[in-house]
Amino acid sequence: MSSLVASGKTKELYTTDDPNVLRVHYTNHTTAGDGERNELIPDKGAVNNQISSLIFGYLNQAGVATHFVNQLDATDQLNKRVQMIPLEVVIRNLAAGHFQKRFGTTYLRPLTKPVVEYFFKSDELHDPMVNDSDAQALDIATEDQLVTMRTIALKVNQLMIKLFKSMNIILVDFKVEFGITDDGQIILADEISPDSCRLLDADTKQSLDKDVFRKQTGDMMTGYREILSKLQAALK
Amino acid sequence: MSSLVASGKTKELYTTDDPNVLRVHYTNHTTAGDGERNELIPDKGAVNNQISSLIFGYLNQAGVATHFVNQLDATDQLNKRVQMIPLEVVIRNLAAGHFQKRFGTTYLRPLTKPVVEYFFKSDELHDPMVNDSDAQALDIATEDQLVTMRTIALKVNQLMIKLFKSMNIILVDFKVEFGITDDGQIILADEISPDSCRLLDADTKQSLDKDVFRKQTGDMMTGYREILSKLQAALK
Ligand SMILES: Nc1ncnc2c1ncn2[C@@H]1O[C@H](COP(=O)(O)OP(=O)(O)OP(=O)(O)O)[C@@H](O)[C@H]1O
Ligand SMILES: Nc1ncnc2c1ncn2[C@@H]1O[C@H](COP(=O)(O)OP(=O)(O)OP(=O)(O)O)[C@@H](O)[C@H]1O
Ligand SMILES: [Mg+2]
Ligand SMILES: [Mg+2]
Repeated sequence: MSSLVASGKTKELYTTDDPNVLRVHYTNHTTAGDGERNELIPDKGAVNNQISSLIFGYLNQAGVATHFVNQLDATDQLNKRVQMIPLEVVIRNLAAGHFQKRFGTTYLRPLTKPVVEYFFKSDELHDPMVNDSDAQALDIATEDQLVTMRTIALKVNQLMIKLFKSMNIILVDFKVEFGITDDGQIILADEISPDSCRLLDADTKQSLDKDVFRKQTGDMMTGYREILSKLQAALK
Repeated sequence: MSSLVASGKTKELYTTDDPNVLRVHYTNHTTAGDGERNELIPDKGAVNNQISSLIFGYLNQAGVATHFVNQLDATDQLNKRVQMIPLEVVIRNLAAGHFQKRFGTTYLRPLTKPVVEYFFKSDELHDPMVNDSDAQALDIATEDQLVTMRTIALKVNQLMIKLFKSMNIILVDFKVEFGITDDGQIILADEISPDSCRLLDADTKQSLDKDVFRKQTGDMMTGYREILSKLQAALK
């Protein structure tokens, strides 16, 4: 017996026989503009499930603790069930998106060092930015948890830069989320896919990620499929 | 010969015979709503100059390095000339203003610990929030400078809480700015006044600060004058 435990804008979480493991179903829902646009894009769930599985598998192998157990089928994977920390952790190597707009910089302006930003996950509040003292003052996370997440996020950034570089792809920025296991360990959770990363062809600088959907500049799935096939080749 | 070196929304800076010292003139200009409202409020410059002088004098005596040299007359004071760091450093003890709105909390919600937030001073960008990694990535400030400012700001908070508590006044939050002296020291600069602090009568919880102007709830100068006379009594 499998029952729905939670669902969000793009994924559905189901119980399994193991109370510590969830089956996560990747849907075709694609959202942009703070949830204003929400469309079904054929095959997206399957492609993202495979991409996310490959990247989490790579990180597990590199010694980063993630929630990923294994891929089940085209659209589903098994993940360790965790208590989510309600933060989006954004890592940036080049200026784009919200950061670019906030600071009025040029697109892809180089940064003196990688940026790590926390945003409080709250649809009503439109995911406001929080710094370390905000998060502690509002009991969203402890100082130790914030330091741990930042350290893991920067490690993941280095590993992902290396992986994508081998595929001739530039990692501009990405978003991760963390959760706490039953025994109190903070591990990487949620997903890592072109929905949550900005990835550019290193030669053409073309977007291979959700920016194609956000800016409506072409067929989003072309880039997603390219990421998947290059990851399959790189991690074979 | 004294010439204007800089002026902002509320103060004018003039040279003096000493190249390392400026005469700072406090004007009656009072702004709110990101500069949308700008009014002249009689006597405000004089009252704020005196309040700022008293608070900076108190901090100097308590061992905090500030730009304050001495008060000259009703509206002017002498300050060490510094290279300003373009950050507004906000310290919060209770939720109000921008923080309250951003997190949808109740007014004056207690915080688990004092909050320190940095905002990049830029009228065009509407003073965006920056965390430590943003500031470093954009070369706004170094890690050492950020730690130094935070440490001084929290020390100033403790000293100001104590001072205002002795006057039966609650320090809700305040904003400071820092500058760098010729010999590289980071010191407290700009002003500390009811324009840049939220101060409440501990019994009635009435605002004695610029919130009276922001929310147009009465005669702003009544609270400012009360702060001044209580400071004069407390620091005599
Ligand atoms: N390993 C996990 N254990 C428990 N929950 C998880 C795990 N990984 C991800 N989640 C949560 O699953 C939910 C569904 O994911 P999805 O990305 O669809 O949601 P969302 O729309 O981003 O966020 P939300 O539902 O919080 O608004 C999210 O709340 C996410 O935090
Ligand atoms: N000791 C100092 N040495 C040099 N500049 C200072 C000093 N103290 C304050 N300043 C600067 O003086 C200027 C005038 O102050 P004022 O508060 O009127 O400006 P503002 O409107 O807040 O800011 P800005 O002019 O930067 O938009 C500000 O730029 C402030 O940073
Ligand atoms: Mg999500
Ligand atoms: Mg000012």
